[in-house]
Amino acid sequence: MSTLAELDMAGIIHPHTTIGAPDRPVIFARGAGAVLWDVDGKSYVDGTCGLWQCPVGHGRPELAAAAAAQIRRLEFFSSFNDYSNEPAIRLAERLLRLAPAGIEKVFFTNGGSEGNETAIKLARLAQYHAGRPERTVILARTAGYHGMGGGSLSATGIDRLRQGFGPLLPDVEFLGKPHALEHDTDTLVAELEARIAELGADRIAAFIGEPVLGVGGMVPPPPDYWPRVQEVLRRNDILFILDEIVTAFGRVGHWFAAEYYGIEPDMIVTAKGISSGYIPMGAVLIGRRVLELADGAMFSHGFTYNGHPVGAAVALANLDILEREDLLARAKVLGVRILDGLMPLSELDHVREVRGVGLMLGIELDRDAASVQAGARADGLIVRAAGNNIVLSPPLVITDDQADTLVRVVSKHVRAIGDPG
Amino acid sequence: MSTLAELDMAGIIHPHTTIGAPDRPVIFARGAGAVLWDVDGKSYVDGTCGLWQCPVGHGRPELAAAAAAQIRRLEFFSSFNDYSNEPAIRLAERLLRLAPAGIEKVFFTNGGSEGNETAIKLARLAQYHAGRPERTVILARTAGYHGMGGGSLSATGIDRLRQGFGPLLPDVEFLGKPHALEHDTDTLVAELEARIAELGADRIAAFIGEPVLGVGGMVPPPPDYWPRVQEVLRRNDILFILDEIVTAFGRVGHWFAAEYYGIEPDMIVTAKGISSGYIPMGAVLIGRRVLELADGAMFSHGFTYNGHPVGAAVALANLDILEREDLLARAKVLGVRILDGLMPLSELDHVREVRGVGLMLGIELDRDAASVQAGARADGLIVRAAGNNIVLSPPLVITDDQADTLVRVVSKHVRAIGDPG
Repeated sequence: MSTLAELDMAGIIHPHTTIGAPDRPVIFARGAGAVLWDVDGKSYVDGTCGLWQCPVGHGRPELAAAAAAQIRRLEFFSSFNDYSNEPAIRLAERLLRLAPAGIEKVFFTNGGSEGNETAIKLARLAQYHAGRPERTVILARTAGYHGMGGGSLSATGIDRLRQGFGPLLPDVEFLGKPHALEHDTDTLVAELEARIAELGADRIAAFIGEPVLGVGGMVPPPPDYWPRVQEVLRRNDILFILDEIVTAFGRVGHWFAAEYYGIEPDMIVTAKGISSGYIPMGAVLIGRRVLELADGAMFSHGFTYNGHPVGAAVALANLDILEREDLLARAKVLGVRILDGLMPLSELDHVREVRGVGLMLGIELDRDAASVQAGARADGLIVRAAGNNIVLSPPLVITDDQADTLVRVVSKHVRAIGDPG
Repeated sequence: MSTLAELDMAGIIHPHTTIGAPDRPVIFARGAGAVLWDVDGKSYVDGTCGLWQCPVGHGRPELAAAAAAQIRRLEFFSSFNDYSNEPAIRLAERLLRLAPAGIEKVFFTNGGSEGNETAIKLARLAQYHAGRPERTVILARTAGYHGMGGGSLSATGIDRLRQGFGPLLPDVEFLGKPHALEHDTDTLVAELEARIAELGADRIAAFIGEPVLGVGGMVPPPPDYWPRVQEVLRRNDILFILDEIVTAFGRVGHWFAAEYYGIEPDMIVTAKGISSGYIPMGAVLIGRRVLELADGAMFSHGFTYNGHPVGAAVALANLDILEREDLLARAKVLGVRILDGLMPLSELDHVREVRGVGLMLGIELDRDAASVQAGARADGLIVRAAGNNIVLSPPLVITDDQADTLVRVVSKHVRAIGDPG
């Protein structure tokens, strides 16, 4: 009989792998808090939350109970048209209470890509319906990541993720990478204004950006970037989509990074942390400006599992945990502890930057970071290498001891790939 | 305190509704088998399965148990790169055992749109990687529905779903609607050959189609359509993507409609019935031809919840139910019973066609069908109006009595909107 690893290699194509050349997998069997165990019983501290999705940590029995109770009552019925269900209604109400000023409505999805597809479509539709059909351009940013669907990939500014899939959506324009190592805010804002002048504001539907670059390497923007970008967009009547798929629900120590940066976007796209990934779930939060432009428009859009009662019930229980265990405050404390612990690495010649906001942390090297990921894994720590960056985003429930282990093991492997002194 | 209906109208934008003008919702609270109850206690026979997603019916306690058990063990970790989990591996193995000849690998998703985004991207990548980068065109069909993301919407041939969202993906070309009322197979195949000749086969990556038009009105193709289309595609070295999001896992009385029509597509896109919608889940089944073209290519693609352990565990339990209760055979018997029951309607002047394959049934009128949906709902039956069509797809567990109720109530309301005799 085949082993699990052999079956995996024989039957599955995993994301971001080479077709025809499968790797032998690490097969996780169990999770609890910030710890994972593979099928061989080896344990790992989870320094990534998988793909940032689990602020409340792994294996929570209260979320198992919430899912099972909802399935027994009503697992799902469409919420297209005038059909609805109670968990979705309760979740919408709660999200609107937590959301920044100006947000008035919720449109549900099952994940981040679906959210950005929705936001891009709604931005274009709002302009079209308001009698400005020539406003179709989406402004996006180099190194930004917004997903893998036709629209969300088109707005993703990472070449290696686009190659071979084109032609993608027309009318997407890229701006520079908002990273203080490369450009200051004055330069970035001047570029934005110049690009708007060049294209014509009356051609532009919306701007989309992540508050902190995620896949791009956990890069916070330079100081004042967001309020100044928002001012330029408002002045030019361009809708402002904030992709908070990674940042919302505690990751930066606030419900939304918009709050942390003092901005009021016209749409906020969420997923991941909303349900801690226990059930795929997402929500696009929609602001007044969009609703005014689109007032009276038929929104012919929606994915099957919109407003999924099980996803919504689990999301509500997940928000309960975030509140009850005060995990937003915990993210701030832990973020400082880990960033302080990693900061000595910034003095190494091959380390370009150590940075972070809350529990989004990045270490940028002058070389590929893959061997740090491999070395850490061998030592029982999961981290993610993204090009030259080590990307860290542990569950918000990671203990002080586990956080210190993370700092120690990452530091060891970053030091190990430096040039001999 | 606001009622649930008021909260819904105040906070949620539902798919396919008018922005700023919410309808008062029907709020479902409970489901069991083919019956739903709203929050006021009114019961309804479910003639739609929501959006076709629940072959095993509503509220199955064994699926609640499967979900809860998996969440307590490991709710989720990414399956990007070389990470994996046992339920996903077991599900892939099982799908490959069920799949038609030529299918060799599985790529997981969370739903239908993600599946078609994946198939379109993989088709283009395979051609690109094989040294044919000019093969970017996707052939699709008028009245076809493939989803709401940037790529899947671009391949959807229904104008009202596209308006206001463009510009969409370049290089998508539409063929005529495969409906015997409009065109016979000779005409459709001649059109396909002419279009290939006109565009040049060396520009075309893939053809995508639903075995039976779903949103387009439950329209089976004319006889011999599929084998003849497949032959033309093979001869021109064009990849063949079959969108079985609606049809797979029993809906037409077979695991796959490909089996029913005697064809061997290069990719089969599935979702809905794979997990009966209890947890969002989907899988793209990938055939030999694609794997040969793409051999050695990095597939830089994947949605966060790829291979979700909870979705996979529920899908496995769902397939167990389909087998244990012999629901594929049941779909055939029920399909005949309901189609026979509805067939007398075809003699009415305002009825253009009564048709079906298995438990996919459609009644096409010469007028809008919305009032049939409304009338049936008042009588405790959920059906779906899609333009001039009444679309029926009850759970495969619907009882004979409930099926007869469906026939009786639909017939009453179809007759009621006829011209006075």
